[in-house]
Amino acid sequence: MDYQLEIEKSQQACEILDELDIASWLVWVRETSQTPDPVLELILGGDVVWQSAFLFTKDGEKIGIVGNFDVDAIEAKGIYDRVVPYTEGIRDQLISELDKFRPRQVAINFSKDNVAADGLTVGMLLKLKEYLKDTPYLTRLVSAEEIITRLRGRKTEKEVTCIRSAIEVTEAIYDRAKSFVKVGMTEIEVYQHFHELMKEHKVTSAWNADHNPAVDAGPDKQFGHSGPTGNKIKKGHLLHFDFGVRWQGYCSDIQRMFFFGPKSAIPEEVQTAFETVRDAIQEASLYISPGVLGYEVDALARKFVKDRGYEEYQHALGHQVGRRAHDGGTLLGPLWERYGTSPKGVVEAGNVFTLELYVTTSNYGQVSLEEDILVTRSGCRFLSNPQSEPICIE
Amino acid sequence: MDYQLEIEKSQQACEILDELDIASWLVWVRETSQTPDPVLELILGGDVVWQSAFLFTKDGEKIGIVGNFDVDAIEAKGIYDRVVPYTEGIRDQLISELDKFRPRQVAINFSKDNVAADGLTVGMLLKLKEYLKDTPYLTRLVSAEEIITRLRGRKTEKEVTCIRSAIEVTEAIYDRAKSFVKVGMTEIEVYQHFHELMKEHKVTSAWNADHNPAVDAGPDKQFGHSGPTGNKIKKGHLLHFDFGVRWQGYCSDIQRMFFFGPKSAIPEEVQTAFETVRDAIQEASLYISPGVLGYEVDALARKFVKDRGYEEYQHALGHQVGRRAHDGGTLLGPLWERYGTSPKGVVEAGNVFTLELYVTTSNYGQVSLEEDILVTRSGCRFLSNPQSEPICIE
Repeated sequence: MDYQLEIEKSQQACEILDELDIASWLVWVRETSQTPDPVLELILGGDVVWQSAFLFTKDGEKIGIVGNFDVDAIEAKGIYDRVVPYTEGIRDQLISELDKFRPRQVAINFSKDNVAADGLTVGMLLKLKEYLKDTPYLTRLVSAEEIITRLRGRKTEKEVTCIRSAIEVTEAIYDRAKSFVKVGMTEIEVYQHFHELMKEHKVTSAWNADHNPAVDAGPDKQFGHSGPTGNKIKKGHLLHFDFGVRWQGYCSDIQRMFFFGPKSAIPEEVQTAFETVRDAIQEASLYISPGVLGYEVDALARKFVKDRGYEEYQHALGHQVGRRAHDGGTLLGPLWERYGTSPKGVVEAGNVFTLELYVTTSNYGQVSLEEDILVTRSGCRFLSNPQSEPICIE
Repeated sequence: MDYQLEIEKSQQACEILDELDIASWLVWVRETSQTPDPVLELILGGDVVWQSAFLFTKDGEKIGIVGNFDVDAIEAKGIYDRVVPYTEGIRDQLISELDKFRPRQVAINFSKDNVAADGLTVGMLLKLKEYLKDTPYLTRLVSAEEIITRLRGRKTEKEVTCIRSAIEVTEAIYDRAKSFVKVGMTEIEVYQHFHELMKEHKVTSAWNADHNPAVDAGPDKQFGHSGPTGNKIKKGHLLHFDFGVRWQGYCSDIQRMFFFGPKSAIPEEVQTAFETVRDAIQEASLYISPGVLGYEVDALARKFVKDRGYEEYQHALGHQVGRRAHDGGTLLGPLWERYGTSPKGVVEAGNVFTLELYVTTSNYGQVSLEEDILVTRSGCRFLSNPQSEPICIE
């Protein structure tokens, strides 16, 4: 296996420490198959069994302190400058490594609002405090939220290439769907076809396979995080998909709308709804650029649909995509309690976001689309090919 | 899908609350595909996206409070008496549910030593404290460690049946291995054969597939958590396996030793080492019963091998097995710093443990075995068929 992505991200972590003037970052974990820290997929690419410490400094040093049984495997990855083993307990090695450069801050992984930066468990924090009790580092613990937000959010070129590949596979499967979805098929049958194609393309599900793809046929199916049902596709109805794949560890997340009938049979309220959603996404894409705040982008799209007389969508306009379909960090969302401070984050070049929203028609259910974009230095670029018309299946 | 196991475990959770006289247990999570709480597989069997609360009372009530998009899927499982939805923020619903029975304690998932009881992240605890700021519950938060230790540890009959099935598949695959492992094969080739058989039996890996099975050929391969290599099997050498599968969500974990040559060619030091390991496991199995402490069982086996002149094994004698290969809770381990208080736990009827240890020979590397046992009211019963002799491949 090749750990180029992890080597690149670990290097980037040290650069971000330097930029933020934070002396060190400590990733502090154990039995990560049970309680994984989301950053491990960036800086380790694998699991550890015993208590382990991964220490990064603003001077560019990367040190692993791990149980003796984990040493060989981690050394072989070539991510860390040094891998220090221990047998009975990690405490002495951890303190001795910290003592070598006596950091003014030790950033650890907790965050009220960024799930991806909240990998530290309460028990592990208690354990850390116990170990650091008689050291100066006990009072130097700070949150690594901003480090992780930047690290996860700023995709490297290699990462963008992976996401782009995931999107290409997703679009290829949607393309194939045009020839197999038919009036009379159930959501479950459509879902199964998608899974066969995922196998063919050697990709896995970008989120829980139970509801990926979400397949919603007709006006009565509630969109959401529930799976496909025995609901059948009917002539003159809409079919909605929310679908994403994972390719080499990176995700896509795209929604599409199919209509069953000729273009001429699309009801006016469906066409208007479709155009509203499509155009709101376009408006948001024209507005977004480095430096704007997450909630500002959401507010623009939200106003756009409300101005056209629709109820506002009950979720955020966009989340980041990367190792995860929901990649954490700055959110293009409203300032609702459940989103905490994440909509107040700053959009940065290199971020990959979804742009997604729905409006509700009177007789045909919801119309919802989702595209993936890359924030560039001057604005953004679509990574998916935006859907411009309902896909008509006759 | 069938949620009988989760329904049974949720019921058991309420009984344990009553037994411990703890008024309520709150499982408090979000985006569990990123930061899963290990208890969710027992009491939910799936993921949630938004902040969610699962509340259990000693009076037997089970309430879910979840984001509106998650409601339908969770209601359909039939685990919870009520599933309360929210849209903008969970705070008000959470407090209003607590106010209905004003619990004297609200147990939450943190533990210094039991990974399986340490699913709460630091950010989520801060969030909870913020939400409960002006309520009496803020000062009523206690650790759910003992609840989870008992809940995970006391396997129901259905759970034991699942573990037994996982063990049967594991033993069937070991049995097949007798006919395909040959002198000259590499560890990687053997590993690949095992994976084909896992597919055939429709089971998945009980731990990270990279090193499952661990395949260690010859005297120089270090046992541990590293994967198979190009190392070849040689005549007169040992081959060691550590292998476990997951069947319907439940795991096995079994080590076996093969020898390449006739029984008559087994070197005396190998035979003596094998018997020491085998007999140490038997001694431990005769000693273990409800009420003994974890470290007492370990100490007995550890003394057994030391008395025979071997160095002591550098790990615990046994861990629990269930939903996970390492299922947390009481550990049959030494009182080493890295094991915290888990070896001080009390062994209970219904616990499933591994019994595993190795000794080191002078010329043939390590000899290591691992069996799975169920603690009964009066002692224990082997769930695996203990290996009694090196498996000779001629």
